[in-house]
Amino acid sequence: MPKQIRINAFDMNTGVHQSQGLWRHPRDRSSEYTTIAYWQNLAKTLEKGKFDGIFLADVTGVYDVFGGNRDAALRNGVQVPNNDPFLLVPAMAAVTEHLGFGITGSLTYEPPYTFARKMSTLDHLTNGRVGWNIVTGYLDSAAKASGATKQTSHDTRYDIAEEYMQLMYKLWEGSWEDGAVQRSADRGIYVDPTRVHAVEHDGEYFRLNGIHLSEPSPQRTPVLYQAGTSPKGQAFAGKHAECIFISSPTKHVMKQSVKKLRAAVQEQGRPADAVVVFAMMNVIVGRTEEEAQEKLRDYRKYASYEGALTLMSGWTGIDFSSCDPKDTVKHMRNDSMHTAIDRFTISDPDRVWTVGEVAEHLAVGGSGPVIVGSVTQVADELQQWMEETDVDGFNLAYTVAPESIQEFVDLVVPELQARGVYKTEYAQGTLREKLFDGAPRLLSPHPAATYRRSR
Amino acid sequence: MPKQIRINAFDMNTGVHQSQGLWRHPRDRSSEYTTIAYWQNLAKTLEKGKFDGIFLADVTGVYDVFGGNRDAALRNGVQVPNNDPFLLVPAMAAVTEHLGFGITGSLTYEPPYTFARKMSTLDHLTNGRVGWNIVTGYLDSAAKASGATKQTSHDTRYDIAEEYMQLMYKLWEGSWEDGAVQRSADRGIYVDPTRVHAVEHDGEYFRLNGIHLSEPSPQRTPVLYQAGTSPKGQAFAGKHAECIFISSPTKHVMKQSVKKLRAAVQEQGRPADAVVVFAMMNVIVGRTEEEAQEKLRDYRKYASYEGALTLMSGWTGIDFSSCDPKDTVKHMRNDSMHTAIDRFTISDPDRVWTVGEVAEHLAVGGSGPVIVGSVTQVADELQQWMEETDVDGFNLAYTVAPESIQEFVDLVVPELQARGVYKTEYAQGTLREKLFDGAPRLLSPHPAATYRRSR
Repeated sequence: MPKQIRINAFDMNTGVHQSQGLWRHPRDRSSEYTTIAYWQNLAKTLEKGKFDGIFLADVTGVYDVFGGNRDAALRNGVQVPNNDPFLLVPAMAAVTEHLGFGITGSLTYEPPYTFARKMSTLDHLTNGRVGWNIVTGYLDSAAKASGATKQTSHDTRYDIAEEYMQLMYKLWEGSWEDGAVQRSADRGIYVDPTRVHAVEHDGEYFRLNGIHLSEPSPQRTPVLYQAGTSPKGQAFAGKHAECIFISSPTKHVMKQSVKKLRAAVQEQGRPADAVVVFAMMNVIVGRTEEEAQEKLRDYRKYASYEGALTLMSGWTGIDFSSCDPKDTVKHMRNDSMHTAIDRFTISDPDRVWTVGEVAEHLAVGGSGPVIVGSVTQVADELQQWMEETDVDGFNLAYTVAPESIQEFVDLVVPELQARGVYKTEYAQGTLREKLFDGAPRLLSPHPAATYRRSR
Repeated sequence: MPKQIRINAFDMNTGVHQSQGLWRHPRDRSSEYTTIAYWQNLAKTLEKGKFDGIFLADVTGVYDVFGGNRDAALRNGVQVPNNDPFLLVPAMAAVTEHLGFGITGSLTYEPPYTFARKMSTLDHLTNGRVGWNIVTGYLDSAAKASGATKQTSHDTRYDIAEEYMQLMYKLWEGSWEDGAVQRSADRGIYVDPTRVHAVEHDGEYFRLNGIHLSEPSPQRTPVLYQAGTSPKGQAFAGKHAECIFISSPTKHVMKQSVKKLRAAVQEQGRPADAVVVFAMMNVIVGRTEEEAQEKLRDYRKYASYEGALTLMSGWTGIDFSSCDPKDTVKHMRNDSMHTAIDRFTISDPDRVWTVGEVAEHLAVGGSGPVIVGSVTQVADELQQWMEETDVDGFNLAYTVAPESIQEFVDLVVPELQARGVYKTEYAQGTLREKLFDGAPRLLSPHPAATYRRSR
């Protein structure tokens, strides 16, 4: 059987996620993001399309680098206003059976003890379908909103993250033994106290003394997602991540990124296929190539140049408000770009991109590549990305919501299924079991396994 | 029209809430608390019974005073394991239209910036049906789990709470003006930046600089619940609370408590009826008195004396493990009881309670009074509580879940409706509009009104 393509939908609990300006398109429904109905309908569409999951981004701050203030972000609704992503999951889980949920949670803003319970609660309610996209936060505005004057430095954030993960594993894997919960009415024992252990953690950044509050959930540790591609980020991903989310404009660059990531995984003693790599992708599909191109032309009419530059400025820390659209991006690379490259690679050795080109690309396609074409062309291109880059699948962005996703489900999915490269039925079990051939728990040498107790 | 009785269901995201030992009853379903189906079914039952809301308690810690460790709490499942209450709301909101949600959130463990967004998100998703039960945390075990060695003193906690509330009002009421969100495709303006204001807070306990991340939700400030009845707690409730939750064993004691609370509200310049007072109540109803008494006898067989004492020990800080069941409770009152009285009054001037009696009462009835009788007797008694104590309604606990609530809905609600003291249809609008005759916002002199901006 050929390698199966994994697909996540890439979204955010906000009105304007990636495709800047497209909220003005007459068919765009993303302004309904504050309602349960919007998300439940989307979830049902995704499950109909046998998507592996929905990946929910989050930003605890505002993009205020462009022009030196937050005005452009507000004017264009660039990921602001935004709402809490976790609270969407129970509503979507209620109308689906298999769809996974990868939720972005910033360990900088989530106190560890209650965060561990929050994830366990979601894992219970979804019956083991939950994943955590581990981020350390990257906006100064977010740090300020939480009482700091500036965010912690990039490298220190990964040190904190490392300790935070240890704490999570202690709570999720080590605190409650299998079989601790007995609920034996006959013997009058709800929990066997000898099988529940306090976490006693006194580290450099965190101190905690207590048992995990939640009983063991189906997956215990949620499926771990990560998007870091800086050296520190890559080492972290190699050690902890089960799903990795990357973005590159060309197959050539992507292939190198995937190679490095799998090497980082192997350096930690884990098999190269212990991670599922999702590449950011946007698809504009038509029943014919001409129909797809016509859609692209229509979409472009609504693209916001200012919105795109606002997002780029926030990601890179460079104020693009005074740039000329013809300036090349490469010219602007500097040390502070580094943080952005964690999330979004706009460098491309094969081509010299201008600011205007990147902005245009971003506005109609999001930060990854865009495939525009007929059903056959899109399917061919997706398969080529799979074959040439060694990714496992795609994080599918959208141009117009939920139209882009709906069309992918209606047109592309059946084609991929007919080609035998996409599932026609979900596998059974938890999200981890679905993604990793039935393995219910993280295996040694993954650090989560070290904290597990057995008798 | 006679005064209408308000009813909330009182529950918690845990297997054993108040009625200790009753999880062993063959018809008890509370072990299903980890599933969405359990909570959605309960929500539908409550809305069928025209309940005003469901009140979700929470404890971020373990009851470890009894015997000096957590063993008894675990053995009896005394509110441990427990899960996050907030994540139940989106699932329950998805299958109801009117039911309100009062959720316990401890400001000690919720960072203000992200907590404000969490509540706004829920208010959006529920279309304005959300309330916040403001607690400051009362268990040393919770404090330890969060890195402190001991919890902050009672009075300091209320000073912190006061500043936290100011911060919430600034974010919920002051940051976004009405009309700031324009979503005007024609003009290309998602948000008018001149109508969004950064909160710049530099206080004694919190520092924050940023705009609220969420756009204004239907209620902005959620309906504010409070349960404190210490002098500091009462002053806090008088200033901030819209719904107050109290518990007393007799009408006489309750009447005095309500009087004090309404006086505390008036001292803050607010009308005495600016708060809705809910009294803790448990009902065991039968089609005849004999049937109800038979139920009580049956329930008592499953009561756990150890579980009840574990809960009492946690609430009071007194280790009841070495007490004789015949010891009187009054004898044990001391300064550390004070914290417990915030939540649960076991003092009763009309009667001398023994430890054994309180435990037995708690095990089958929870911490409030228990009415056992026929439909007529229950309705009579509820009306007498209303008339003699000046409460506005009840926080209805349960003995066996969800049987106790189901029976109340099937038997008692129709009787109260026939007597004209209970709604037959929900009022329209948000939870606040339903509870306060259509008032959408908190009015001056409530402090929330001070932070509102108008043009």
